[in-house]
Amino acid sequence: MGIIVAKFGGSSVADAPQIRKTKAITEADPARRYVVVSGPGKRSKEDEKITDLLYQFKDQAAAGQATEAEETFSVIEERFVGLEEELGVAVGMAGLLAEIRERLTAGASRDYAASRGEYLNARLIAAFYGYDFVDAEGLVLFDRDGGFLADETDAALSAELAKHERAVIPGFYGSLPGGGIKTFSRGGSDITGAIVARAARADVYENWTDVSGFLMTDPRVVENPKPIPRLTYREQRELSAMGASVLHEDAITPARVAGIPIQIKNTNTPGDAGTMIVRDDDRAALRAGLKGIAGKKGFAILRLYKSAAGPKLPLLARLLVLATRFGLSIESAPGGVDALALILSGVPDREGLEAFAKTIVDEINPDHLEIRKEVTLLAAVGNGITADARAAVGMTRALRDAGIRPLLIEAGANDISILVGVDDEEYEPALRAVYAALA
Amino acid sequence: MGIIVAKFGGSSVADAPQIRKTKAITEADPARRYVVVSGPGKRSKEDEKITDLLYQFKDQAAAGQATEAEETFSVIEERFVGLEEELGVAVGMAGLLAEIRERLTAGASRDYAASRGEYLNARLIAAFYGYDFVDAEGLVLFDRDGGFLADETDAALSAELAKHERAVIPGFYGSLPGGGIKTFSRGGSDITGAIVARAARADVYENWTDVSGFLMTDPRVVENPKPIPRLTYREQRELSAMGASVLHEDAITPARVAGIPIQIKNTNTPGDAGTMIVRDDDRAALRAGLKGIAGKKGFAILRLYKSAAGPKLPLLARLLVLATRFGLSIESAPGGVDALALILSGVPDREGLEAFAKTIVDEINPDHLEIRKEVTLLAAVGNGITADARAAVGMTRALRDAGIRPLLIEAGANDISILVGVDDEEYEPALRAVYAALA
Repeated sequence: MGIIVAKFGGSSVADAPQIRKTKAITEADPARRYVVVSGPGKRSKEDEKITDLLYQFKDQAAAGQATEAEETFSVIEERFVGLEEELGVAVGMAGLLAEIRERLTAGASRDYAASRGEYLNARLIAAFYGYDFVDAEGLVLFDRDGGFLADETDAALSAELAKHERAVIPGFYGSLPGGGIKTFSRGGSDITGAIVARAARADVYENWTDVSGFLMTDPRVVENPKPIPRLTYREQRELSAMGASVLHEDAITPARVAGIPIQIKNTNTPGDAGTMIVRDDDRAALRAGLKGIAGKKGFAILRLYKSAAGPKLPLLARLLVLATRFGLSIESAPGGVDALALILSGVPDREGLEAFAKTIVDEINPDHLEIRKEVTLLAAVGNGITADARAAVGMTRALRDAGIRPLLIEAGANDISILVGVDDEEYEPALRAVYAALA
Repeated sequence: MGIIVAKFGGSSVADAPQIRKTKAITEADPARRYVVVSGPGKRSKEDEKITDLLYQFKDQAAAGQATEAEETFSVIEERFVGLEEELGVAVGMAGLLAEIRERLTAGASRDYAASRGEYLNARLIAAFYGYDFVDAEGLVLFDRDGGFLADETDAALSAELAKHERAVIPGFYGSLPGGGIKTFSRGGSDITGAIVARAARADVYENWTDVSGFLMTDPRVVENPKPIPRLTYREQRELSAMGASVLHEDAITPARVAGIPIQIKNTNTPGDAGTMIVRDDDRAALRAGLKGIAGKKGFAILRLYKSAAGPKLPLLARLLVLATRFGLSIESAPGGVDALALILSGVPDREGLEAFAKTIVDEINPDHLEIRKEVTLLAAVGNGITADARAAVGMTRALRDAGIRPLLIEAGANDISILVGVDDEEYEPALRAVYAALA
């Protein structure tokens, strides 16, 4: 029998009915021996996030606002005590909450505060499943600077898991060398899931969420986009980096290192196929063709013209020095005859960009300099898509037919994506046109 | 009455019949007051170049090969004395040749040797036209390091031209501060023509050659390509840099500085319209659309994949340092998610590239590194072509229909070209397919 590690996201463990669904899913396959859980997510749009409430309590307590802190903590308390009752388990929730309250009042860190939602939820769910509870503290390890220690974690965690036939592990956090709590960035329970999958030498890492896997494009812009049944780690990273937000961007690495496929599934419709993320050399996924179309706002394009400037390398090197000085991020530096462009991400405010432009004018003295702000990059992603050319033809034609003028086209930096830059304002019509043409 | 500066290239002044054609052209418009000439070009495919014979003589004389040197010089002598006779002029050619022979035997520089074809031809043509001869020596000025002194030259040359109603000036060379001769790179008479046009405050710079201006693409690959009636300096530079070889790449700058249009004409069919190269803001030329399609071989594409490598800027900066260490030229550095590519020109031999790749592997430790050699870049050039998108659609579709897989597509580094990379072997079918689709 193989091993499955299942990770359930915030909406999948938001309340007792949802947690019952996860139990049914977990029990449906005895291979699901290790389960990673998020903290309880919002039950409705108006619901407050447990993490935010924990931060709020800490701040109020620190500011000496005793009444307000009391109110805040009672909301947290109600939620967890309510869960304990509804699930019919006995984990000593009142005592656990009292201890957290005491430590937060005594000045425990923000990361400690943030992590308690996952901790308490994992305690509840372990009891409800009849699984062991294995805390991530002391097993998911960070260095003094907050850098994740992949190999040390794998050694500690796999040794611990070997002692447990079945266990529930809280996502999102681990610990620092001194013993303090350290969290991953938001959405980091996905990373914990991948780490546990690697440590358990799992055959598959199931990531249960509230969507049925990756869709070919953003459903907020395009109605009912098709699902993506299978894509490679690299395709997934490309889609995620360019705006598809199903999985945390860094969640791939631990699974990829161990070659474990990631199955994205929907807790609310477990019968849906979902998306399987597989090795980069997977045959079925490697079949050339479009997998998805993502879009990401917030870029800028800087174009510098300098006639007969000589070799491009020293000019580019000087531009990079200036960009570094201004703290800018560069995604790409396409060159042309007498011209060099920079695609900037994490673009600062107008003043920052203008100061950067002024410095270029002063130090490089170009014939002409243009900065185009508010640029969206659309990415058509799929193995071999550059060489295949069908996507490039389809994208450019679709944009032309929609009357949208592309600011840039770039294919060939890798072999799995074609980028087209458009005005932010044209993002939605552009995405709809490209999806209609290609999908 | 305006002033026209006419430059006649090597094939236009290769023999007496050709020189007669140039006289008829010059006399047809009294505005053609200043004429720049190349040395006599080849009269047939088998003909030896005067420049090469002059080098050969110098080398043989230096090596003490008296008999061989004698034979070489007699070929040069016959050519120029023959021209003097056929044109029916008396410039004392025998004496001029004797002086050149003496100075070359005494060890005059290679640049001096190379320049004498232009010098003697200008002497002959000035006499034949009844124009003054104005030597470029002492007027076209270089600094100690061989850098062209644009403003100093303009001052000296315009002062001298003011003393001559009509003159013939030899192309290709000028002089160093010490007085030695210094030549431009091959084809540099085009540059002299532009320099003289600027100094004469000409209304137009006519460049007379053996083709009727720029054609939309390479006639060696595509049969009877359409001519280009009008293009801007920038479009011309882009086409020239990408492989169209009508005009020397650096010939534009002096004319551009002075805003003088360049008219490319055919000495053999002076009735043909030719190509007019105009200011970058010329309305008629600015009408968006394709002007030409050029192709250039000898590029390489390096693609580096490194997953979750963090910001791209420091990685690119390190790559530039390594490329500089290996003396490589970079044309473009397009980036993708987890990937960075370099488009290299002036690619060294296989060993050089492999040593570069090995150093990248050692110092940057990428997940994967690919080098693709023997890449041809096709450039579709025209003002506003990026935003227009018709060309991008046409190019990508034409390549797809021809079964050619593009290695890269790049548009947006500037607004006047779209680059597509293909295998060297696919250059000709690719160019034919793209021309057929777009032109």
